[in-house]
Amino acid sequence: MHTADDRPAPVHSTDPRTGEPRGPVATEAGAARVDAAVRAAAAAAPALADRARRTALLRAAADHLEAAAGEIVTAADAETALGTARLTGELARTTYQLRAFADQVDEGSFLDIVIDHADPALGRPDLRRTKLPLGVVAVFAASNFPLAFSVSGGDTASALAAGCPVVVKAHPDHPETGATTARLIRAAAESVGLPADVLGLVHGFDAGPALVRHPLTAAVGFTGSVRGGRALYDLAAARPRPIPFHGELGSLNPVVVTERAAATRAEEIGAGLAGSFTLGNGQFCVKPGLVLVPAADPGVEKAVVAAAAQAPAAPMLDPRMRAAFLEGVRERAARPGVEVLLAAGAAPADGAPLAVRPGVLAVAADRLADLLLEECFGPVTVLVRYRDATELETVLARLDGTLTATVQLAADERGPDAAALLQRLLPLAGRLVVDGWPTGVAVAPAMQHGGPYPATTSTSTSVGATAIERWLRPVSYQNTPEELLPPELHDANPLGLPRRVDGRREP
Amino acid sequence: MHTADDRPAPVHSTDPRTGEPRGPVATEAGAARVDAAVRAAAAAAPALADRARRTALLRAAADHLEAAAGEIVTAADAETALGTARLTGELARTTYQLRAFADQVDEGSFLDIVIDHADPALGRPDLRRTKLPLGVVAVFAASNFPLAFSVSGGDTASALAAGCPVVVKAHPDHPETGATTARLIRAAAESVGLPADVLGLVHGFDAGPALVRHPLTAAVGFTGSVRGGRALYDLAAARPRPIPFHGELGSLNPVVVTERAAATRAEEIGAGLAGSFTLGNGQFCVKPGLVLVPAADPGVEKAVVAAAAQAPAAPMLDPRMRAAFLEGVRERAARPGVEVLLAAGAAPADGAPLAVRPGVLAVAADRLADLLLEECFGPVTVLVRYRDATELETVLARLDGTLTATVQLAADERGPDAAALLQRLLPLAGRLVVDGWPTGVAVAPAMQHGGPYPATTSTSTSVGATAIERWLRPVSYQNTPEELLPPELHDANPLGLPRRVDGRREP
Repeated sequence: MHTADDRPAPVHSTDPRTGEPRGPVATEAGAARVDAAVRAAAAAAPALADRARRTALLRAAADHLEAAAGEIVTAADAETALGTARLTGELARTTYQLRAFADQVDEGSFLDIVIDHADPALGRPDLRRTKLPLGVVAVFAASNFPLAFSVSGGDTASALAAGCPVVVKAHPDHPETGATTARLIRAAAESVGLPADVLGLVHGFDAGPALVRHPLTAAVGFTGSVRGGRALYDLAAARPRPIPFHGELGSLNPVVVTERAAATRAEEIGAGLAGSFTLGNGQFCVKPGLVLVPAADPGVEKAVVAAAAQAPAAPMLDPRMRAAFLEGVRERAARPGVEVLLAAGAAPADGAPLAVRPGVLAVAADRLADLLLEECFGPVTVLVRYRDATELETVLARLDGTLTATVQLAADERGPDAAALLQRLLPLAGRLVVDGWPTGVAVAPAMQHGGPYPATTSTSTSVGATAIERWLRPVSYQNTPEELLPPELHDANPLGLPRRVDGRREP
Repeated sequence: MHTADDRPAPVHSTDPRTGEPRGPVATEAGAARVDAAVRAAAAAAPALADRARRTALLRAAADHLEAAAGEIVTAADAETALGTARLTGELARTTYQLRAFADQVDEGSFLDIVIDHADPALGRPDLRRTKLPLGVVAVFAASNFPLAFSVSGGDTASALAAGCPVVVKAHPDHPETGATTARLIRAAAESVGLPADVLGLVHGFDAGPALVRHPLTAAVGFTGSVRGGRALYDLAAARPRPIPFHGELGSLNPVVVTERAAATRAEEIGAGLAGSFTLGNGQFCVKPGLVLVPAADPGVEKAVVAAAAQAPAAPMLDPRMRAAFLEGVRERAARPGVEVLLAAGAAPADGAPLAVRPGVLAVAADRLADLLLEECFGPVTVLVRYRDATELETVLARLDGTLTATVQLAADERGPDAAALLQRLLPLAGRLVVDGWPTGVAVAPAMQHGGPYPATTSTSTSVGATAIERWLRPVSYQNTPEELLPPELHDANPLGLPRRVDGRREP
């Protein structure tokens, strides 16, 4: 039989420092290969039902990744140019995350177990609720975090923790890193007696829609652009049986600097902002892209320009993104009223002819074009000069949903005005930051990495403990003899899980 | 200005016993009226931020409904013919539900509060997570529960509990009941110092899509048909900013009777099944619509037919549903191999010329037409005769997602075969029932009323404590001075809420 998969196209990546193609590391998957990957993952699902096996897998995956740190970081740096220091840190975040989800599975709160014994007075039967894994989860790797938001990232870790096998659509910017980390996680699975197919990997543009449409795909985790994410979201919603689509699409991450903050903390704010918007060469989903500064006080503007001018030129993740960044900055700079405080542009560096340098734009609040309210991926930020509270509100009212919103206050601004400002930002964002910066998304139980659309397509988070909730659904057992109940629902609580029994928490 | 709302069409209901129209009780809402209702609800949202006010509202609503019980039950019976006994019970369920959500808001677990203090060793800032109401919730009233799943029902109660104002699309089968209960809840709001517009009501077919499309509508709760629900789901997904759509669409609620159960409990199972599929005249979302019985043992068949033949004839909810039921039964009976064990049909009763009597169909597993796998709303059930485990599995493999799945076992069936049967049904359903019946959906924390598509369009429940989760989204505060945090996130826990602080539960 001849299929499109018989002569699959090779997958190359590109050296982002030079634009040169790198040797093929994989081949593109057509519909038949995607089908095979999803079926293999679905067949591996029963093996993941055992929680102890899942925690062993997550910890073994962390161990395997650490043992191959040199190989991984070398491949990721060659494919992304993010640098070995950053990538070593990202690997540490990745293994920390895998182990944190293992701890969470051990602890068991995520099952949300509720037991209500029969109550004849209320006419209520015995009811016991736990949570089940949804099935195969399709994960779309992100361009900008080849480890922590890709094959080995939080979507994969939380899905495996929930008991869901995963098929990852590799990102074309780092196929070798994807293949390497997939191989290591598959080996980790086998090392703990699980089938390697608890994690599958597919490459190629067409594999994405095929994965979302596959009847056995039960949910999707996506990190990427508004355009690509919305197209896949629409596919998920249009399926004969729609599935949950947890997508992180785009985010402007506005910052508000109050007049008194500018008057008292201009140097600190400017330096912090420059560090934040140039971190990872501005290729973070939480990059502060729009900064409201008091028009009357140029302090912050001067400080941010001075600090950003010192930032080293660096390559973007790929030449296409580089071109989009340079064009995006050019278009924004050409809008009426826009002042270029620091010119972004091509800045060939040693060994990196495609490097770019960061830029800062400024515009008056009453001349703010719609284009400036759209995310521009890369090291640029837009300062919006507001003259008074009315202008500030007018700008805030134009903002879309966003992952984060930040306020910079003076040390003594802790009263009703500051509270009102936070309250005003609350409907826009999933995370509010005070006197800090949104870059740096801590892997912590209290983290919320998700916000109103288009920041995310659901109310969930993709970072932190509650990310596991995305891949589970509740099920209740009614009037079921103990011999037929799973052990977590037995009266004696043999697994020692946290539960709510007849309205009271145990243990 | 002339708009479609200038000469709105009157809304009539129909006496389901006679088919006679009843006097107009309201007028249809066009786009302008829907817009006004949603805007008014959105303007009322800030007043719902106070939790104590919300619990007062829910309890006052229960009190107001109880005080007007006579008026409500009379209107509902005239519009639905469900009978005063059933409707009195449904009102008790409704007020119980309102008070249960109030208790839950007082208790506070639903906020899922997590506090992680800064940990410099992990490079982690201070993070504090709570949950926020999403905004205006659109609720679509159900035909078959004019109180407990309509204006005063669980979607409304859980949304108000979450802090979301509600605009209900009234069901055309009971507009007077809807208007009456809306008026009472609005009065209850005013009695506790809240704006009446925390609850709005709109009538008319066109109001539905307008409500789902409205930019200020933040989420939807729906109970109804697959066709209507899917159309609205598609609208919600196609919005410029998609919103969560929690819809309960259709459910077959399969029952498996084992050979030994049939051999030992035929009379009990037959009587129980007859009671369950004729309850509420078969107009329950959890009506058992497909019953797998052993082909070799006619005991259950005889018992269910004998019992169902005694059930009184009763009117359907409206003449259109009656026609659809009669046609649905006719079409199914005409499929090859289908045997009519008890003929459903028109059966004029005293004062109810439109009453129908229940029916029972039977068919061999290997002749089961696709049509018989579709829900048929009304008092009919299909017995499917299986000869062996292979035939049983073949039928189960053809089933769609469903709210419930039920097994009837013999008293001594508690071993691996019974466990395997439950395990086999688990992927299909949101609730597993053993030796009981799916009708009767207890309002309890452990209840799950929701299942794989098309049973529901999301992984949530519309009954029980966790129904509140549908209307909330998490938000994290990072590095925020205590003076600017809401009290539930203060270190001292002044509100005494359950929280998880640095990994430990308090209080």
